[in-house]
Amino acid sequence: MFDEKDHSRMQAALEEASLAFHRDEVPIGAVLVDTKTGEIVARASNRTIEQSDPTAHAEILLIREMCQRLGVQRIPDYDIYVTIEPCPMCAAALSFARIQRVIFGASDPKSGGITSPVALYQKPQLHHKPKILSGLMMEECREIMKRFFAEKRGFVKEAREEG
Amino acid sequence: MFDEKDHSRMQAALEEASLAFHRDEVPIGAVLVDTKTGEIVARASNRTIEQSDPTAHAEILLIREMCQRLGVQRIPDYDIYVTIEPCPMCAAALSFARIQRVIFGASDPKSGGITSPVALYQKPQLHHKPKILSGLMMEECREIMKRFFAEKRGFVKEAREEG
Repeated sequence: MFDEKDHSRMQAALEEASLAFHRDEVPIGAVLVDTKTGEIVARASNRTIEQSDPTAHAEILLIREMCQRLGVQRIPDYDIYVTIEPCPMCAAALSFARIQRVIFGASDPKSGGITSPVALYQKPQLHHKPKILSGLMMEECREIMKRFFAEKRGFVKEAREEG
Repeated sequence: MFDEKDHSRMQAALEEASLAFHRDEVPIGAVLVDTKTGEIVARASNRTIEQSDPTAHAEILLIREMCQRLGVQRIPDYDIYVTIEPCPMCAAALSFARIQRVIFGASDPKSGGITSPVALYQKPQLHHKPKILSGLMMEECREIMKRFFAEKRGFVKEAREEG
């Protein structure tokens, strides 16, 4: 289902996730791809802490960046590659932006907006439904999240033991 | 259910909606209220065209503004008054921001994220569920939307007849 190009794009998204990890932000990364040229045109990862903005998820940052660059509200000629299934906020925003395809690595049953029972793209309230592909480099995408939250729990445990 | 203060806050949200109408943006307005003082601390309306940002809904603009002002990601001591039921993107963002109460004027069965079958606040994927109150100045909130879309359709019809 996925070719070499898909892998290199998700690899770029994973590198963004890794940058977020080192900024102590939830390690989700994403890249935007121009469907006409196949090129990656923008990269982002979560910056909710840095920007004091609970909406500063990787997907939202990419939508804002590209729409502002082009002076438009809709970017139908772009695909997004994102390490983890978008949350309901991002799933809705990707629909508003008319993103062509959403390719994600690992699903997120606890907080996802697409495959979880939220199933936003199966509801008539969102008029545009991006095409969805999933499972690309799933293990790597999931692994960095697991490691992040395991460390967080470790810190909490250590702090409790010290306190 | 609603008192004089509620009405004056929704009136302020309606004034914001009216400003959006005159900027040719979808006329939805909102205000943020400090639950400790009862004061309106921020006002906004849709600016998706002006900002080339499909996420620039009134609710998102208010969350960003207040979170950045306070240097936080969560604003649990604030209520939002918004003229129309929030869309799925905004409903999720209001949950992430830990908004205390969402008071809206008119429901939006076609695009809403709360009372429509999307029903985001009934799903476990969103951990914080703001308290919801609705129907405050419903007619006025709905009226300005109707007028806006009737004018849009009028322009289209005129253009077709002229063309």
